[in-house]
Amino acid sequence: MDKQAFGWRKIEELAGEQGIKSMKAVEEFSPRLAKLALEFGYGDVYADDSLTMQQRALITLSSLITQGDAGRGLHYHFRAALNIGLEKAQILELINHCSAYAGFPKAIHALHIFKEVLEQAEQKK
Amino acid sequence: MDKQAFGWRKIEELAGEQGIKSMKAVEEFSPRLAKLALEFGYGDVYADDSLTMQQRALITLSSLITQGDAGRGLHYHFRAALNIGLEKAQILELINHCSAYAGFPKAIHALHIFKEVLEQAEQKK
Amino acid sequence: MDKQAFGWRKIEELAGEQGIKSMKAVEEFSPRLAKLALEFGYGDVYADDSLTMQQRALITLSSLITQGDAGRGLHYHFRAALNIGLEKAQILELINHCSAYAGFPKAIHALHIFKEVLEQAEQKK
Amino acid sequence: MDKQAFGWRKIEELAGEQGIKSMKAVEEFSPRLAKLALEFGYGDVYADDSLTMQQRALITLSSLITQGDAGRGLHYHFRAALNIGLEKAQILELINHCSAYAGFPKAIHALHIFKEVLEQAEQKK
Amino acid sequence: MDKQAFGWRKIEELAGEQGIKSMKAVEEFSPRLAKLALEFGYGDVYADDSLTMQQRALITLSSLITQGDAGRGLHYHFRAALNIGLEKAQILELINHCSAYAGFPKAIHALHIFKEVLEQAEQKK
Amino acid sequence: MDKQAFGWRKIEELAGEQGIKSMKAVEEFSPRLAKLALEFGYGDVYADDSLTMQQRALITLSSLITQGDAGRGLHYHFRAALNIGLEKAQILELINHCSAYAGFPKAIHALHIFKEVLEQAEQKK
Repeated sequence: MDKQAFGWRKIEELAGEQGIKSMKAVEEFSPRLAKLALEFGYGDVYADDSLTMQQRALITLSSLITQGDAGRGLHYHFRAALNIGLEKAQILELINHCSAYAGFPKAIHALHIFKEVLEQAEQKK
Repeated sequence: MDKQAFGWRKIEELAGEQGIKSMKAVEEFSPRLAKLALEFGYGDVYADDSLTMQQRALITLSSLITQGDAGRGLHYHFRAALNIGLEKAQILELINHCSAYAGFPKAIHALHIFKEVLEQAEQKK
Repeated sequence: MDKQAFGWRKIEELAGEQGIKSMKAVEEFSPRLAKLALEFGYGDVYADDSLTMQQRALITLSSLITQGDAGRGLHYHFRAALNIGLEKAQILELINHCSAYAGFPKAIHALHIFKEVLEQAEQKK
Repeated sequence: MDKQAFGWRKIEELAGEQGIKSMKAVEEFSPRLAKLALEFGYGDVYADDSLTMQQRALITLSSLITQGDAGRGLHYHFRAALNIGLEKAQILELINHCSAYAGFPKAIHALHIFKEVLEQAEQKK
Repeated sequence: MDKQAFGWRKIEELAGEQGIKSMKAVEEFSPRLAKLALEFGYGDVYADDSLTMQQRALITLSSLITQGDAGRGLHYHFRAALNIGLEKAQILELINHCSAYAGFPKAIHALHIFKEVLEQAEQKK
Repeated sequence: MDKQAFGWRKIEELAGEQGIKSMKAVEEFSPRLAKLALEFGYGDVYADDSLTMQQRALITLSSLITQGDAGRGLHYHFRAALNIGLEKAQILELINHCSAYAGFPKAIHALHIFKEVLEQAEQKK
């Protein structure tokens, strides 16, 4: 399987149909950024077994919380973390842990976004 | 066991004698910062079983790499990550993963610090 | 008085009923993050007289402006700064000062949020 | 011509009437921040020919993408970059370039804001 | 008095002869950056009485701690804060306060730099 | 030519023999990070003609200054910027420009690193 195909499959695994749609939107507007994200971001980076998908999700979320992601990235990756089996309690504790390393304002900002993600997931059921 | 005692024990678990020494140095200069770090940073934050010590180490390191820690924090927590059983290959892959989420300059900066940590560990043997 | 009670009192002093409500919302969704914020963030940190509440407000706001807080933290702490007696002119000058140390984009972003806070305060009267 | 007049002219060159309006709004609320932005930010900084306006726009946008600007700064300076003649393809490639140096989440956040700016520009025609 | 002269005087007030020397070094290598720093950074920004010099020092230090300043800025402004009369206990508490808003790694990094500044000041006596 | 070969050529163009050596050192310690940096960072990102090498250098440096790179990245990319023909005056003005967008402390930190780079280049002649 080539890198792009592998990238699309990883997106589906992480973020389901909503993830596919959202990368398709990137691709329509900027085919080259989508290509870079697919081949490198998903295709290459995730193609290594030293870390599990759940470990990668913890790393990704910690990075997003720390960089003060305004919302889009956190939304996407909180959903992804749930999709690949992290439990709500683990994600809440990740946010708690970040309060000590990145400060409370970023932890509380992340908490509100995670709450929205859970509420939206609830409505879909 | 009170929070401070629990905090000291966590530091020993994470960073061994070197960690104890380094917190004692903080305590000598700023007793209150040491108290806050021990009771909250170690005592409270680590006192929850939703995440394992290894998961916490991944989260901490991702936060430090992303915030562009100049060196002290990364040194301390790379050593800690090895102490609690993360393998070299896992830590290298954490750095790779961060290249996509926090950019290459921060990943390569972290790589050099991790290399120093491993070389120092080697010399002690 | 225990730390949590002290924490709640500090929140009331800083942010009034709105502050209490907003921490109650955090508590409902993540009791442990609320506990950490109350006991450590408010209970411990503010329980020291080396700095006045107004000095702490300047430090908090400078940190939030510099970390590029997306909005929630700045809203809360601009209101708090007014509550504990900082004048509008002082807060405006804090923003001016930050333009030199954190750059104009963050200063102007903060200015717009402060403007909203003042307009909302005006409407309540 | 004095610095303020020069500053206003630069704003017009960069951001047209919309830019003038937006600085007037800053001026109404905080005359001193507007003065600092006009005299220093526009008047002094842009008054040097070592870099062209297009080179400055690339530098400004890279800084805003990297600092994770929540939106206002990126909106303003994407419009400005188009006004002074950078092409859509160049701006898209600037975003691609930043994905490697500041990470994908910031690049994709910037992409969505740039898309909004182009859609708004389209509607005005 | 013109802005540059005012700027030099502010530097002397903040950072004494060492401050003058350090800005002269900037001026020799980059006259224009020194001019911008003097006229805007010191001349304009500090020329307003809404905030005292001590309040400005708290704001500056909080910004530097939060942005993870690698060392040069923190060294300079810790010395300056002592020069203009902030006490050691106040600066230590500023660092404690920042642990909650910007995280422990940045607070502990700042603590070590502050310790160096005090040790150097001690040696000069 | 495959991506890796293209990547190595780009490194040579940007950073000469010193650049090759430094990537070889990364490769020895972490073959996978070197592969990602070569194939994606250099191979893919630089393989597009919408921006010139000089424009890319301005974008890279602005990102590094803004993210507060502790030193390694700025050293490498200041040298690279000179290698591909940016003039000293242009790089100094880039730093000046960043003072307004990322604040003076980061600009002055970058200035000192650029000075070191020029002094080392002088010594080699």
